[in-house]
Amino acid sequence: MSLPIGFTAHPSELLRVEPGFTLAGTPTDAAPGYSGKKDDGAATLAERAPVLAQLQEQLFAESRFEGKKSVLLILQAMDTAGKGGIVGRVVGAVDPQGVKMKSFKAPTEEEKAHDFLWRVRPAAPEPGMLGVFDRSHYEDVLIHRVHGWADEAELERRYAAINAFEQELVDAGTTIVKVMLNVGRDEQLERLGARLHDPTKYWKYNPGDLDERAHWPAYMDAYQRVFDKTSTDTAPWHVVPADKKWYARMAVQELLIKAMGELNLQWPAGDYDLAVERARLKDA
Amino acid sequence: MSLPIGFTAHPSELLRVEPGFTLAGTPTDAAPGYSGKKDDGAATLAERAPVLAQLQEQLFAESRFEGKKSVLLILQAMDTAGKGGIVGRVVGAVDPQGVKMKSFKAPTEEEKAHDFLWRVRPAAPEPGMLGVFDRSHYEDVLIHRVHGWADEAELERRYAAINAFEQELVDAGTTIVKVMLNVGRDEQLERLGARLHDPTKYWKYNPGDLDERAHWPAYMDAYQRVFDKTSTDTAPWHVVPADKKWYARMAVQELLIKAMGELNLQWPAGDYDLAVERARLKDA
Repeated sequence: MSLPIGFTAHPSELLRVEPGFTLAGTPTDAAPGYSGKKDDGAATLAERAPVLAQLQEQLFAESRFEGKKSVLLILQAMDTAGKGGIVGRVVGAVDPQGVKMKSFKAPTEEEKAHDFLWRVRPAAPEPGMLGVFDRSHYEDVLIHRVHGWADEAELERRYAAINAFEQELVDAGTTIVKVMLNVGRDEQLERLGARLHDPTKYWKYNPGDLDERAHWPAYMDAYQRVFDKTSTDTAPWHVVPADKKWYARMAVQELLIKAMGELNLQWPAGDYDLAVERARLKDA
Repeated sequence: MSLPIGFTAHPSELLRVEPGFTLAGTPTDAAPGYSGKKDDGAATLAERAPVLAQLQEQLFAESRFEGKKSVLLILQAMDTAGKGGIVGRVVGAVDPQGVKMKSFKAPTEEEKAHDFLWRVRPAAPEPGMLGVFDRSHYEDVLIHRVHGWADEAELERRYAAINAFEQELVDAGTTIVKVMLNVGRDEQLERLGARLHDPTKYWKYNPGDLDERAHWPAYMDAYQRVFDKTSTDTAPWHVVPADKKWYARMAVQELLIKAMGELNLQWPAGDYDLAVERARLKDA
C-alpha cells in the first residue's frame, strides 16, 4: 500500500478502531500521520479529488456490466463535527450520478412502527454507487442508549442485528467505510457559537443541539460501546480527529480512495464486438 | 436582470423556445450571446460554480423552515449530447446533500404496468432540493413516437398529461428548467467513434445508440412536437447548442443560476430566540 502524499503512515491504519481502543483521551485536534499544515492539506484534498472521482467512475462503469460492487460511507458524529463538510468537500468531488446520499433524521411514525433497520435497507447503495449515510442505524444504539429509549437487552439485540446487516451488505459486494468524526467538546462549543453569530449559519443551529451536548459523557460511552460491539473485520470503525476540518476531510478522502483502490476496478471491455461496431459506425 | 460575464444577452432569453420556434436548422455548434472562447468559458464555469452552490444552499436552508421551493432540471437529448457532463460539471458543483438525481432508463415491467407518470412523480425534488432528471417523462413522447409505441391519440393525451403534471409541480413550489441539448448529427458520429477508440470509454458505448441514430429525422420531428406542445409559460423549453460542450455547460449553469436567483432566497432567521440561545450557550 503506497502512502498518500504528506502521510508518514496510512490513515486507515492509524485511525482504525482495533480491539482495546479507548475513545476517552483520544486527541480530537491531532493530525495523525500527516506532516503538513492546513494549506498543504487543502492542496492535497484538491489534488486527490480526481483520483477518487475516477475510482468511482470505474465502479459505476463496472456496474453497467457484471459489477456488483458498491461502497458505503457511514458518518456518525456529535453535532457540528463536520459531516456536512465531508459530504460537500470529499463526496462532492464525485459525479452526482454515482452518489446515493441519505440523511437519517428522527424516524417518522411509519418508520417507528417497523424494526430499526427497516428504513435503512432501501438506502443502501446499488452496485456502482458510492452510498453515504449522514447518521445511520447507529443512532438506534447511540441516542437510544443515551436517553434510555432502549434497554440493555434491546441494545444487545441491535448490535448483533447491525453486525448481521452489515455482513449481509458486505457479502453482496458492498465495501463499508465507517467513520466517527471525533470533535472536541470545547471545539463544539465554539462552532455552535459561530452558528449563533453568523446570519448565514443561523439556520444550522438547533436548540436541541445544546440539549444533546449536555449528555456528552453518555454519548462518549455510547460510542465506546458501538466500537466495542460493531468494529468488525469486515466493517471496522475509524475514529477521525475532527477539530481540524482540513485533516478530517483529507483523512476520509484517503479512506475512500484506499477502499475503492482495493477493489481492483477496471474499465470494462463492453459487451459488444468492437470490430463489428467500428464497421457499423462507418455507415451510420 | 444582469448579464453573466461574457454574455451579450442572457442564455435564458436566447435559448428559450418561443412560439414558432423551429428546431430544424437551429445551429448546434454556435455559442449564442457569448463573446468568449473555450478557455474563457471554462473559467466562467469555475467562477460561477460557487454562485450556484450558494443559491442551492439557501434553497436548502429555507426548506428547513417554511420553504416549499425546489428546482427541477430536466435534461433531454440524443445520445452523446453531454447530459452526463452537465450533471458532473454543473450540478457537480452543488452540495450532494441538496441534489436529487434520477436517471430514467427503459421502464421495468412494474413501471410499464402503470401510467407513464407513475414512476416520475416520486422522483420529483422535495423542498430545498435541486432535482435532476437525466431523461424523463419526455421519453414517453419521444422514443414512443419514433417507434410508434403510442398512437396519435395517446401522444396527445400524454402531452396534456405532462403539462398538467408540470403545472402541478410548479403550483407546489417547483421551478422547472427544461433543457434539450442540441447536438449535431455529425458531432454525434464523432463522439460515438471516440467511445469506440478509447478503452476508458468502451463502457459508455451501446450498440443500440446506432439503431436510434438511424431514426435521427424522426427524433427531430418528435422533439419539434414536444416543443410545440409542452413549452409553456410556466415550464418553457430551452434548446442549448451542444457541439461545444463548454458552451452548453456554461449556458445550463446560467439557466439554473437565473431560475434560483428569481426565487429571492434568503438566509432563514431560525425559529428560536437568538438572545436566549446565546445566553444558554454560555453555560453549556
